[in-house]
Amino acid sequence: MIVKGFRAGAAIANMRYQDRLDLGLILADGPAAWAGVFTQSVCQAAPVIWSRQRSSLGRGRAFLANAGQANAQTGAGGLTDCRRSADLVAQAVGCRAEEIMLASTGIIGQSLNMAALAAAVPALAGALRPAGLEDFARAILTTDTVAKTAAETIEAEGGPIHIWGCAKGSGMIAPNMATLLAFVLTDAQVAPELLPAILAEGAELSFNRVTVDGDTSTNDSLLMMASGASAAEAVTDGEPLAAFKAGLFRVLTSLARQVARDGEGATKLVTVRVRGAANPGEARRAARTVAESPLVKTAFFGGDANWGRVCAALGRSGAAFDPYQVDIDLDQVPWVRQGVDNGQEEAATLVMGQREYVLDINLKAGDQEYEALTCDFSHEYVSINGSYRS
Amino acid sequence: MIVKGFRAGAAIANMRYQDRLDLGLILADGPAAWAGVFTQSVCQAAPVIWSRQRSSLGRGRAFLANAGQANAQTGAGGLTDCRRSADLVAQAVGCRAEEIMLASTGIIGQSLNMAALAAAVPALAGALRPAGLEDFARAILTTDTVAKTAAETIEAEGGPIHIWGCAKGSGMIAPNMATLLAFVLTDAQVAPELLPAILAEGAELSFNRVTVDGDTSTNDSLLMMASGASAAEAVTDGEPLAAFKAGLFRVLTSLARQVARDGEGATKLVTVRVRGAANPGEARRAARTVAESPLVKTAFFGGDANWGRVCAALGRSGAAFDPYQVDIDLDQVPWVRQGVDNGQEEAATLVMGQREYVLDINLKAGDQEYEALTCDFSHEYVSINGSYRS
Repeated sequence: MIVKGFRAGAAIANMRYQDRLDLGLILADGPAAWAGVFTQSVCQAAPVIWSRQRSSLGRGRAFLANAGQANAQTGAGGLTDCRRSADLVAQAVGCRAEEIMLASTGIIGQSLNMAALAAAVPALAGALRPAGLEDFARAILTTDTVAKTAAETIEAEGGPIHIWGCAKGSGMIAPNMATLLAFVLTDAQVAPELLPAILAEGAELSFNRVTVDGDTSTNDSLLMMASGASAAEAVTDGEPLAAFKAGLFRVLTSLARQVARDGEGATKLVTVRVRGAANPGEARRAARTVAESPLVKTAFFGGDANWGRVCAALGRSGAAFDPYQVDIDLDQVPWVRQGVDNGQEEAATLVMGQREYVLDINLKAGDQEYEALTCDFSHEYVSINGSYRS
Repeated sequence: MIVKGFRAGAAIANMRYQDRLDLGLILADGPAAWAGVFTQSVCQAAPVIWSRQRSSLGRGRAFLANAGQANAQTGAGGLTDCRRSADLVAQAVGCRAEEIMLASTGIIGQSLNMAALAAAVPALAGALRPAGLEDFARAILTTDTVAKTAAETIEAEGGPIHIWGCAKGSGMIAPNMATLLAFVLTDAQVAPELLPAILAEGAELSFNRVTVDGDTSTNDSLLMMASGASAAEAVTDGEPLAAFKAGLFRVLTSLARQVARDGEGATKLVTVRVRGAANPGEARRAARTVAESPLVKTAFFGGDANWGRVCAALGRSGAAFDPYQVDIDLDQVPWVRQGVDNGQEEAATLVMGQREYVLDINLKAGDQEYEALTCDFSHEYVSINGSYRS
């Protein structure tokens, strides 16, 4: 997709990976409204500190992202490297350093390879083009097996609005924020004051519901720019705002699902839906506890229709419920009724053989619900993470 | 070891496993002081409900344990089976059903094979002997690879006091309670009023510090009996009480370490010590978050000296600290200083090649500390739990 008002590109910088796109840039033709949602970790990577400050300015021009080195736990030198990266790019493309948000993913504790980055900036600036978004999406990948992008076109008064996003996973993925990096662009006219709340709401409905391994990263960042280059009327309120948000949330949700599906070593994508909780906090806690349980996730991997592990996870989640009221369905299969086995072993095993399914839990303790997205824990997850750095 | 005043034994009941000891019994010669610490899960197994009620009576005679079927989420029928199991054993050994605490481990949702149990009770009663404790310890195993026992002898005024315990792990292991089943016997004279608090304190210092996978079970039970058959003076207060507690806590700690070392698929035993936390809750949360992080645990497995994952886990733990104050040691290796790499990759990798080591974290935010025990996440963990029931 082409989103009006933006150019993008990527370069082979050889910062840590060799001979693949590892440095990406998105540049708005002029100042664009922007916003960011960032990791809640106490240990914030230097680019997170940099970008959080810049995002509060309301408008900017560019996103610079690299894969392989996280620039986290790198001390004052890490922030110096941020400043220098932004300066180099600002000079090359003709904007100010403060108009660039940065994002890094890779090994924590490793500083940016600044020599390699500096050498690659001219090629990066030269690669910018309206059709360059897919290259950018590829340049941010680490252990991801596929690039993750999503797009929506909204027919608005005056002309179409385009929304495009990309994300990278695929380990150290857990709510707040449930992604390493995601970038969203739109050509809609949206006031900078509106954008942060819209983006935060979208993050809560999408990335914050994904868990691969319960590990939140030091670098998690969701960044968005709106160029206003569309001929459509400005998005301010009412139906246009509702339509815009709906389109944006579809993009974010699609990206979140792609992240879960491409979780490190994942072979299954499972939606864990908890209904009938006494309050929103308990709905959330129950769903997340099930979605993060290693025993549940290894059972997903093995296709072992062992509902007892789901009950065990619910039982320790902190949610209040009567264990002999709980109903559990696997897609349409009534797996557990009133807390006990419902004789559906064969049907449940068939569902668990699928690539995607829904685990639906009714606690019957109230009317609150929450959905979490998770994947299975496989041998491959252990292999990838036993030697990620090598 | 022989603990005066007790006989024990086991039988091949073929309840679920075939041709191995799967049903164990410990019988006190007369009423013994007893106590229990049980799972905090909302989903309590029938034997937990049964035993919790009985433990409050202060004294009893016997522990009956089976491996393979958890009798959890089995409804009213599960409690009926408890009553019937206790009746059968009570009749065979000559005590009351209320004087028997029960413990089960195995698959949640499966009812006890009562026909097999009933058929095995005569052999079980016939197997009872003072030297039968090791048989009991073997009968309670499921995916454990070795039996876990520990013993202490205390030279007290009047004669020796013996303390013996056994435990079984090895998955679904997490604080509150960090074991599936553990049984402790002593011939000390201890008043029934004292025992619950002593046992709870011991559990907090031992089993509650172990995590294999963060999954607390429906069946976790730590049961203790004191026969009073030792010639030693009664344990009431002062130095004798202190010596008794110290011996008991050594037994419990040894069992907890054995459970962690024999965690499903585990190849490493790691002590995660957090010091310098602002308060006890944050010390605990920081240590447990690191000890339960799948990314940290897979790095332990791979021997990958990736300290960034430790920082990431600390950062999301909820503990307050300055990321550029943190020191991290691996045994004696100063791995991280002031939050950044300390150039110890080679030495750290050597430590991570060991079977056991200590990860020592100083948050420098206060003076509180906490120690958690964990193991690594291996391919074998995934294999075992992908098909536990088959």
